[in-house]
Amino acid sequence: MSRALKLSLTRRYRFAASHRLHRPNFSETDNQRIYGKCSNPHGHGHNYSLEVTISGAVDPETGMVANLGELDPFVEREVVEAFDHKYLNEEVPEFNKEVPTAENICREIYRRLKGFPAARLERVRLEETSKNSFEFDGEIGDREQRAP
Amino acid sequence: MSRALKLSLTRRYRFAASHRLHRPNFSETDNQRIYGKCSNPHGHGHNYSLEVTISGAVDPETGMVANLGELDPFVEREVVEAFDHKYLNEEVPEFNKEVPTAENICREIYRRLKGFPAARLERVRLEETSKNSFEFDGEIGDREQRAP
Amino acid sequence: MSRALKLSLTRRYRFAASHRLHRPNFSETDNQRIYGKCSNPHGHGHNYSLEVTISGAVDPETGMVANLGELDPFVEREVVEAFDHKYLNEEVPEFNKEVPTAENICREIYRRLKGFPAARLERVRLEETSKNSFEFDGEIGDREQRAP
Amino acid sequence: MSRALKLSLTRRYRFAASHRLHRPNFSETDNQRIYGKCSNPHGHGHNYSLEVTISGAVDPETGMVANLGELDPFVEREVVEAFDHKYLNEEVPEFNKEVPTAENICREIYRRLKGFPAARLERVRLEETSKNSFEFDGEIGDREQRAP
Amino acid sequence: MSRALKLSLTRRYRFAASHRLHRPNFSETDNQRIYGKCSNPHGHGHNYSLEVTISGAVDPETGMVANLGELDPFVEREVVEAFDHKYLNEEVPEFNKEVPTAENICREIYRRLKGFPAARLERVRLEETSKNSFEFDGEIGDREQRAP
Amino acid sequence: MSRALKLSLTRRYRFAASHRLHRPNFSETDNQRIYGKCSNPHGHGHNYSLEVTISGAVDPETGMVANLGELDPFVEREVVEAFDHKYLNEEVPEFNKEVPTAENICREIYRRLKGFPAARLERVRLEETSKNSFEFDGEIGDREQRAP
Repeated sequence: MSRALKLSLTRRYRFAASHRLHRPNFSETDNQRIYGKCSNPHGHGHNYSLEVTISGAVDPETGMVANLGELDPFVEREVVEAFDHKYLNEEVPEFNKEVPTAENICREIYRRLKGFPAARLERVRLEETSKNSFEFDGEIGDREQRAP
Repeated sequence: MSRALKLSLTRRYRFAASHRLHRPNFSETDNQRIYGKCSNPHGHGHNYSLEVTISGAVDPETGMVANLGELDPFVEREVVEAFDHKYLNEEVPEFNKEVPTAENICREIYRRLKGFPAARLERVRLEETSKNSFEFDGEIGDREQRAP
Repeated sequence: MSRALKLSLTRRYRFAASHRLHRPNFSETDNQRIYGKCSNPHGHGHNYSLEVTISGAVDPETGMVANLGELDPFVEREVVEAFDHKYLNEEVPEFNKEVPTAENICREIYRRLKGFPAARLERVRLEETSKNSFEFDGEIGDREQRAP
Repeated sequence: MSRALKLSLTRRYRFAASHRLHRPNFSETDNQRIYGKCSNPHGHGHNYSLEVTISGAVDPETGMVANLGELDPFVEREVVEAFDHKYLNEEVPEFNKEVPTAENICREIYRRLKGFPAARLERVRLEETSKNSFEFDGEIGDREQRAP
Repeated sequence: MSRALKLSLTRRYRFAASHRLHRPNFSETDNQRIYGKCSNPHGHGHNYSLEVTISGAVDPETGMVANLGELDPFVEREVVEAFDHKYLNEEVPEFNKEVPTAENICREIYRRLKGFPAARLERVRLEETSKNSFEFDGEIGDREQRAP
Repeated sequence: MSRALKLSLTRRYRFAASHRLHRPNFSETDNQRIYGKCSNPHGHGHNYSLEVTISGAVDPETGMVANLGELDPFVEREVVEAFDHKYLNEEVPEFNKEVPTAENICREIYRRLKGFPAARLERVRLEETSKNSFEFDGEIGDREQRAP
């Protein structure tokens, strides 16, 4: 019910990256069956569109939920600089061990952003192509922590 | 609360179809008042954009909620092949009796997809024009069935 | 749970307007720090895209949630005519006293639309630029009132 | 070279219509081979997006090439009212004899608009789906007529 | 024919601004007739999307027509900084005397960009709303100057 | 003038790929200065949107310029299969020696498509991100060859 008070703000960011979907502990047949052409040895890439939704009460003084002047540098530093123009498997440490599917990228972005101090992170939505998008709104632990 | 664990995936499909909004048991005046130019005798058509959202836990092995290699042929077979390049009133049996408003098309698509075996169907969203979209997330019965 | 029965319909409207973010009771330094270039004395403008979502049961007779023939003139009269091609600070009375941030515009639009008689207003979403959107689904009071 | 003086203005209109691609003088096999699923007996439909480009000198008094207050009712009357929510094969006389391919619709629209009195019609572009568009800028005869 | 050698590059920029269409030497009736609601005394605004097209030979060394590292700061300085979040009639000197119609904004942007040193300016396209865009490719004088 | 007779058709294709902009014969400083973050050793990727425009007379029998049933497999085979989900520098032979800038990708696509037998290739347009696109309409040699 506390949700009812809130207004949410969604801000879009973009980054371009490459990745390869492949697990060394799977057989070649399994990699091919599960990831198809996404498992090609040389990787491939996408323009990712990331929507970050935060929410909160509207400050009666400023008329704003949060200042984009605070959100933008936070997201730039935590996500965009780290992911943009990178080969995710090699250059983002979390994807050395975890396969960088859009699902896992989405969760990793959520993990990096959930500490935003000026408003509550509601969810992240990641568009990988014009046909696919992924949305994550937190693990159980986060959700319990957020309850008042 | 079980929602908190889930990540959702939205996949877009497209089909082009024609329909006519008209009920034989309404008077001409009523058909005209309710459906306006959509009740023209010869029908008219749209490019429909369909977004199917499924959700589930991320498989720790594959890093995926569901394999598009399974979702795509399911949606193609159940919906796209049946609706694409068709006159809905005549060629989709459910619309012989029910008027194919976007609302009813949306519900019929949900009904056809809710049995997807590999993940939970969250909702379907149907865009009929650049100005209108419709979203359905299930009847009470479905919802109760889904509760653990 | 009553939500489960509903189908929602989202309709897009557009208006172009100008505004200035500035509070006379803030110092110039504060106006600049909080609103940045949005506090320029002469104002600036945007094309706003407004999505209005209403929901309800699908009428078994008409196959519709609500008639756009009723929704369109209501939104046109309450919002589009009042906001389109206007300088919001001066020409919309509510923004003489409240600063017309997207958040406050969003809430004002919700307030103007929540009385729509033919279906329940679920939420309004206001896109101010291709990078920013804002969504509001009502104050606590509204929400309690809506519960059966 | 006279082109160099001109500024062009493109205005978008939308209509939804249905059609069937089929020629009675072709065999069924040929209709199927040439038009594929577009030859289904009941027809199918699209949301068409039409871009009309006109050009001319900028009027030094008004700062405009042409007044949209003149262009809009012209296009509405000549094209949108005639095509919107229609079954083109039956309800637009030109398509009783000619098959309403996007190419022929495009040419027919050009023919209907080339007489716009207040500026030169440069071209029409018709988008039939998110993947296909068609553009026509006139027959030789028109072009010669237009040369000074 | 020299065109045949060239590859063109189009880059998109965005700015938000407000304007008023009104000429003091026109009567109120004429202002209203010509500019309609765009002549409202307080002005109104838009999100403008600007596409700048440059062309040239592809440098066999770098594989590029021009370096965006040179184009971006040029357009930012000449246009975006000068127009973004401004009331054009008052804050861009050229529009103190000329009415800031999209046509005139388009020409003024072309005038400001035609001196780009690293490639030939082909045209500018200015989108004022989702329904209107304007394109300008130069005055005769520019064109003759450009011929080798 | 022969252009006047033609109607053009533009068809959109999509592929996702990764690349690295880097020339071994440039110094590191030069690679960095010219290509910036695009020269990162591990490459990065994009969703490419490709628009292929062909033109010709409308066949009076079929009402079409060309059959998409012929164009689609041609473009799929010549471009999409070869580029989609590939690391261009390594997996497309032409980019072993030439740096795969969007300009060079655009020219290579044109080269692969210009032999389309059923209509004249007018141009290819390649969108690399939502801010950049590139267009190529042929080398002088091609153009002369095309003249009747």
